[in-house]
Amino acid sequence: AEMGKSLVSDEPEFNRKAFDELVLRKMFVVPSFEIHGGVKGLFDLGPPACSLKAAMIDLWRKHFVLAESMLEMECTCLTPEAVLKTSGHVDRFTDLMVKDPQTAECFRADKLLEDAIDSLLEANPTMPVEEREDHLRIQRQADAFSPTELDELLIKYDCKGPSGEAYTPSFPFNLMFKTSIGPEGTSVGYLRPETAQGLFVNYRRLLDLNAGKMPFAAAQIGLGFRNEIAPRSGLLRVREFCMGEIEHFVNPKDKSHPNFKSVTDKELVLFGRDDQLGSGKTKTIACGEAVESGLINNETLAYFMARTQLYMEKIGMDPQRLRFRQHLATEMAHYAADCWDLEIKSSYGWQECVGHADRACYDLEVHSRATKTSMVATQKVDPPQEMEVAKLKFDRKLLGQAFKGDQRVVSGMLESLAESWTDFEPIATKLENDGKTTVEGFEITKEMMTWTKQKKTVHEIKFTPSVIEPSFGMGRILYSLLEHSFYQRESDEQRVVMRFTPQVAPEKCAVLPISSNPECNEIVDDIARDLMDSDLATRVDKSTAAIGRRYSRSDELGIPFAVTVDFDTLNDGTVTLRERDSTVQVRLPKNDINYLLFQIVHSRMTWEDVMKKYPVVSTGDDTEVAAE
Amino acid sequence: AEMGKSLVSDEPEFNRKAFDELVLRKMFVVPSFEIHGGVKGLFDLGPPACSLKAAMIDLWRKHFVLAESMLEMECTCLTPEAVLKTSGHVDRFTDLMVKDPQTAECFRADKLLEDAIDSLLEANPTMPVEEREDHLRIQRQADAFSPTELDELLIKYDCKGPSGEAYTPSFPFNLMFKTSIGPEGTSVGYLRPETAQGLFVNYRRLLDLNAGKMPFAAAQIGLGFRNEIAPRSGLLRVREFCMGEIEHFVNPKDKSHPNFKSVTDKELVLFGRDDQLGSGKTKTIACGEAVESGLINNETLAYFMARTQLYMEKIGMDPQRLRFRQHLATEMAHYAADCWDLEIKSSYGWQECVGHADRACYDLEVHSRATKTSMVATQKVDPPQEMEVAKLKFDRKLLGQAFKGDQRVVSGMLESLAESWTDFEPIATKLENDGKTTVEGFEITKEMMTWTKQKKTVHEIKFTPSVIEPSFGMGRILYSLLEHSFYQRESDEQRVVMRFTPQVAPEKCAVLPISSNPECNEIVDDIARDLMDSDLATRVDKSTAAIGRRYSRSDELGIPFAVTVDFDTLNDGTVTLRERDSTVQVRLPKNDINYLLFQIVHSRMTWEDVMKKYPVVSTGDDTEVAAE
Repeated sequence: AEMGKSLVSDEPEFNRKAFDELVLRKMFVVPSFEIHGGVKGLFDLGPPACSLKAAMIDLWRKHFVLAESMLEMECTCLTPEAVLKTSGHVDRFTDLMVKDPQTAECFRADKLLEDAIDSLLEANPTMPVEEREDHLRIQRQADAFSPTELDELLIKYDCKGPSGEAYTPSFPFNLMFKTSIGPEGTSVGYLRPETAQGLFVNYRRLLDLNAGKMPFAAAQIGLGFRNEIAPRSGLLRVREFCMGEIEHFVNPKDKSHPNFKSVTDKELVLFGRDDQLGSGKTKTIACGEAVESGLINNETLAYFMARTQLYMEKIGMDPQRLRFRQHLATEMAHYAADCWDLEIKSSYGWQECVGHADRACYDLEVHSRATKTSMVATQKVDPPQEMEVAKLKFDRKLLGQAFKGDQRVVSGMLESLAESWTDFEPIATKLENDGKTTVEGFEITKEMMTWTKQKKTVHEIKFTPSVIEPSFGMGRILYSLLEHSFYQRESDEQRVVMRFTPQVAPEKCAVLPISSNPECNEIVDDIARDLMDSDLATRVDKSTAAIGRRYSRSDELGIPFAVTVDFDTLNDGTVTLRERDSTVQVRLPKNDINYLLFQIVHSRMTWEDVMKKYPVVSTGDDTEVAAE
Repeated sequence: AEMGKSLVSDEPEFNRKAFDELVLRKMFVVPSFEIHGGVKGLFDLGPPACSLKAAMIDLWRKHFVLAESMLEMECTCLTPEAVLKTSGHVDRFTDLMVKDPQTAECFRADKLLEDAIDSLLEANPTMPVEEREDHLRIQRQADAFSPTELDELLIKYDCKGPSGEAYTPSFPFNLMFKTSIGPEGTSVGYLRPETAQGLFVNYRRLLDLNAGKMPFAAAQIGLGFRNEIAPRSGLLRVREFCMGEIEHFVNPKDKSHPNFKSVTDKELVLFGRDDQLGSGKTKTIACGEAVESGLINNETLAYFMARTQLYMEKIGMDPQRLRFRQHLATEMAHYAADCWDLEIKSSYGWQECVGHADRACYDLEVHSRATKTSMVATQKVDPPQEMEVAKLKFDRKLLGQAFKGDQRVVSGMLESLAESWTDFEPIATKLENDGKTTVEGFEITKEMMTWTKQKKTVHEIKFTPSVIEPSFGMGRILYSLLEHSFYQRESDEQRVVMRFTPQVAPEKCAVLPISSNPECNEIVDDIARDLMDSDLATRVDKSTAAIGRRYSRSDELGIPFAVTVDFDTLNDGTVTLRERDSTVQVRLPKNDINYLLFQIVHSRMTWEDVMKKYPVVSTGDDTEVAAE
């Protein structure tokens, strides 16, 4: 999209050809079932990306799950229809699709509009700025239009199918993969389009496991599936993908976060709703200020946005190519309070990679209603507070007659509202004036209960929790990280490097003997075994290639350090340690390697510390040095 | 099954009620979508099982993938029909099913037979041993019978459906979940029933990545899906499961393994084909001997069996409840050379948990033929050997006319056979006598080529590799480990414990303050943070429950160690360290904890070492000690 292009200028040029060549040759990512012709939107991770992903997930687990004692689960992908009917996915998890009336080829309507605007702007480079901005504003809202609006815009921008005819009107296409569970063939199931539902349906057990304490968070890492209409942009829009989702359950009236103070000063690049419809420009604002000014709805939402930013920096994403984009009102589900997508810029433009949504009480309430399960939580009020509440007395018989199995859901709901007179008052007024009212779809009559307004010292309150949900597209993040990590050495374009940080690099160290001398080899094996024993993944390269060639190989895999064992090692037990990006080498006792790398990988030491401690024996480009 | 029962006697009694209560309460495993009524054969892993699984997989990756530099991949679950048609799954991945003609309820025919024999033997405890053995022999072959044989046996054993009528004849039911990929709805896809196919179709790229070197292995950990007819036995027979598969590609004529000598003395409990049809008894044999005597087909297969045994011991499985059962000839695919299942005994009897199959060249050959992709590998002969070979000269024109696109596959196949005169001679004879012959389904005529027998110094040989495949059912292993780890304290049945080893325990240490004194809490947090920083997952329990109660909680989660911070800690910096199973406590400086636990978790030190080094301050049951 054009948005991307306008910000590209200050970034190094991206050499797609060299990048793609490396990605395929080293098997970071390959098309699935390639020898059988492949399937659009399906990709396999080869050995280096497989371990990169494992490292990313390991850090994710530490940064989010372990750091805040979240309850991690692993739920199934196969999901019965009832669950996804309840969540709304069966009816509403759709994209708008059009067909070419001649060829019957299918297209995503919003993407056609985006492309048409790109082409128009490209064809008219001298278009006045204001006119241009108008088009871009429409482009930014592409996936928020109604079918009728989209149809009109496709006509306005003169979009035609491959046959040359206008497209069919757009219609919703459900993105879930459907299957049948069990031998009878009568039970419809879907592959989950997100991992969240598994956590919602387990909420009661999770709350019990957490000894009833609120707020708390559950998390899940696993596969999601979407039958994309027209997969494209490589790994960025695929049909099967790894997600990491967090569901933070919180009191709807108190969305403060106990650790918020740790991030108040953290600056985020924010692209608010108003700026998207207006200036088209982002703002850089400290997290605390963004909440105070009301730009971000609440502390917990802002806290997770800041934590996401920190995670991205930790895994080595380029902070210059990160921004948070707020959902437009038309984009957001009706129940949601606020949504911000972390977008990452790659050669394909800005792409949503992590959603942060305040989903209010929607999810728990729909499952509560569908299954007649109470989702109410209790939170201590400390210190106890005097509050105005409504004291209810139900006519249980009447309630039973009216709602049958739903009786307890209805009374629970009313009791939860009665905890605050402010919440209950509108219902009381309605009942007094009209004799009846509707609450969450249930018709309540005056006869069903009596109430009195009371003052009460409240020690605990009951509520159906709101859910604040950060949702990570791990595959998209992985692909973006590959792009952000890739560079070519200035000295030699042929030498390509992945600049993975020591924390996330799939392999931490290469160990290379300078000769095939058996004594050298033995030392190499010892060093490698020691490192592996400390969980520092290590690659041994005993091939006869020149040492410079072997450094290059390890650079291509993003291995941050290389240890070289040479003839001096046999005499004095020292080796060289080379840092990948600077290609600086230091000389040090071989027995120091293990401790040193462990400290660096665990962020307790830096390469600068190493350079201060040991003599530097070589700097700059090492192909020359190495070409013995 | 009866087999299981007869071996139970020397094992501690298994208290299913207490076990199930713990598993559900602590959310090790819970039924999926429970509040919506659940789905048979689908289970979720809750927080402790989720981290246990992560630890099991982490050890698996180190024990297999990293230790032997295997190439790990992550391929998609969604699989196009062409791939599974080629592999044979579309036509043959079936179980035999029968229905009750009245209720239309579906059953797995072999399981009905097994159950019927169980009931018969239970109802006739005085049956003569020989007659009993005859029934058991039939039971052991239950899943190897043909439909007709099974139908006859169901009648013989008088199996009737719930309605009281005899079942319908048995018919094959395909176990794959079917779906449709793409918006057009015309492209059939399946959820993979195994992860292996993803590796086979990537074989060419993997071989290149491995610089053409043979033998090599690829590995994959991921989900598999099977639409079981009648899921049962808890986690042991489910519809969605995690697998770990290794495909070891090897020269079909040289299945030796370079590391075999490391396992020759390792003893395995083997239940060979002959013993299953005969004595019904297992034999304990050293790995080397089993290969020498021909019981296990080759070194590589036996090597992986031994490695599997070692892995099981490492994660804490009870070696008394492990055995390797060889597939009967009727059970095995026609192309397979030998198959051994590692079976684990649980309260449900013996259950296949890891398959070890020598699949010969079947997989690569079918994909080669279907996609016209050469799967031939080259291996150095070192030192070079003089061999008798056939030198071929093709009539390319004739070959092209006869085989069109398959031409290269056919000539490759013939050239591969020609590498050894012994292999080629039967073809030569056939062609000379009959003028034609069939090789792998292709009809070859005499006119297509000429050949001469030659002596040749062979520096390298070409072949389509055989595949030796260990295939791990991670969910089954996890469930078995839960059972093997569970026990009740002799002193108090209510106190249940999971005896996870320090290597696999999801959390390594609990840290408990004896009072809510802020200074104590600070030390607790410091110790926990230090441990977490060294990747030792730690649980802090600051609740006001008695210390004995908190020890019990950590026992239930299988946490091997607990550190207690008390008032003495404030004075002299020492803490107590408690070992879970012995409940022995030692007193030591708090700064020693981190190093100590790291060494134990990485198997460099044992609890015995700790007891020698530090004063023991308490032994035996600690509920009394702790009830301050």
